[in-house]
Amino acid sequence: MLRARFFASMREFELLKIVEEIFGDEKIDVPAGKHDAGFLRYGDEFLVFTCDTVNELCDFPRFMEPEEYGKMAVAVTLSDLAGSGAKPLVFLSSISLREPDEGIFRKILLGIKSWAEKFGVKVAGGDIDFSPVLTISGFAVGSARRILTREGAKIGDKVYLTGALGKAQLCLEMLEKGFRRDELPYAQKLYTPEPRIREGLLISEYASALTDISDSLAVSAHLISKASRVKIVIERDKLDLSYLTEFVGEEKAIELFLYGGGDYELLFTAESSDIGLEIGRVEEGSGVYLDRTIVPFRGYSHF
Amino acid sequence: MLRARFFASMREFELLKIVEEIFGDEKIDVPAGKHDAGFLRYGDEFLVFTCDTVNELCDFPRFMEPEEYGKMAVAVTLSDLAGSGAKPLVFLSSISLREPDEGIFRKILLGIKSWAEKFGVKVAGGDIDFSPVLTISGFAVGSARRILTREGAKIGDKVYLTGALGKAQLCLEMLEKGFRRDELPYAQKLYTPEPRIREGLLISEYASALTDISDSLAVSAHLISKASRVKIVIERDKLDLSYLTEFVGEEKAIELFLYGGGDYELLFTAESSDIGLEIGRVEEGSGVYLDRTIVPFRGYSHF
Repeated sequence: MLRARFFASMREFELLKIVEEIFGDEKIDVPAGKHDAGFLRYGDEFLVFTCDTVNELCDFPRFMEPEEYGKMAVAVTLSDLAGSGAKPLVFLSSISLREPDEGIFRKILLGIKSWAEKFGVKVAGGDIDFSPVLTISGFAVGSARRILTREGAKIGDKVYLTGALGKAQLCLEMLEKGFRRDELPYAQKLYTPEPRIREGLLISEYASALTDISDSLAVSAHLISKASRVKIVIERDKLDLSYLTEFVGEEKAIELFLYGGGDYELLFTAESSDIGLEIGRVEEGSGVYLDRTIVPFRGYSHF
Repeated sequence: MLRARFFASMREFELLKIVEEIFGDEKIDVPAGKHDAGFLRYGDEFLVFTCDTVNELCDFPRFMEPEEYGKMAVAVTLSDLAGSGAKPLVFLSSISLREPDEGIFRKILLGIKSWAEKFGVKVAGGDIDFSPVLTISGFAVGSARRILTREGAKIGDKVYLTGALGKAQLCLEMLEKGFRRDELPYAQKLYTPEPRIREGLLISEYASALTDISDSLAVSAHLISKASRVKIVIERDKLDLSYLTEFVGEEKAIELFLYGGGDYELLFTAESSDIGLEIGRVEEGSGVYLDRTIVPFRGYSHF
């Protein structure tokens, strides 16, 4: 999402192939590398596991407050549970500080506590370490009644989003141009994104495929397209991008919408849905399209 | 355990007080900061959660191989489950690479896979990130039939270790003096420590208190003493330190035994035990003693 992410760009997905090669045959219902989170049957349900790391070099926008570091660690981790239709159970974090600064540490923990309470997850532990780069690794466990992943989108399904995309990226680019935090139109989206836990749970009742959007809509749509072996068509006339064109031109607005990261909304397919914004349809074929134009696999990698 | 750990020394325990202050009242059976791992009742059992981070600046001894980075990440994380008498269920890791080096990444994953298989845990996912300091955060979930923590040591109990202590520290100090890896007497203990999963499960049937030893025996014994409100007495004449005195003097051997880190053995109390080495007894009072000499709360902090 930030500058450092451009550096490695899509190389993360090359590395993910190695993960699948080495761990693809683990005896687990959904293994590592296949989805946002792993699923393991446990009693009548599935336990759902995920982890995500944020660090100050790659993930914290300028002017971000330590309490927001903690909130972001919770948000990005729980977003993977939301993208699996899972109910959060516990959250843990490994916090690597630059130095044993009690003030910053306390603020990070208070941020974690407030976001954990807001999204209904218990804080079950953690670890303190030291690193020249302040880093927080979040881990979460949830439970789900069924397996819901990127696989399963059906021809004829519609494509939905839980909310507007491109707001975080717009703000980030404004920061790079020298705007102050209080001048950003969607600062809340950039500094304190919220995982769509409630929506994920509701959607899990009927969605055919689901994932969260951390890198970009383009990346998430490609992941669903590939896992489900379908074509995803985003329909331009279904999109209301006025919240972006208020600040940038039409072309830039579409770029922010398709390739911007950091909004942490959910992308899902279903026969129909009262939840979310309908943005397109699932067709026979492969790849991702905006009407008839190919949308490349591109976004802001986790790096 | 390494030089960088001296820097912050015992400050980690100051920070842990903040964790307890903020998360001590979470509605979880054993909350963050109270033990090596958190416990949450789930059906008829408890789920047990833990996380641990290692990085190349603080945790990887000189001459360590990338495959061993992965093994160590599994070992230190599972060691917390062993120290809770839990059966491992899944392991996840967040790996922060310096650059998208597929060779190192593959070796780390192969190390994780081999140690995960050896200790019976499924790899359920992970995350790839970027950082100037190669860092691996491990996260594990286990299951346990009962809560077993540092609390519960009873007056009259005996004190046991699952194995010899001080070997890793001896090797580390030899490295600092310029010895090569192939000259170290206990290189395996330093580079590929093994979590005492099997022993932890057996001990969990009857132990009154249990913890793993990552920092030092002194630290772990103090944590049991404080949580159980008892005095821990280590008896010199019960200790056979010949595996250390072969290389160093008597006084240094005792120092390595009491204050050395990195062996990842378990410390437990029980009325009696066929497993482990008996090293002392639980008495009324407080603090930790070697016969009549006070053993201070000192070791190699996680930093």
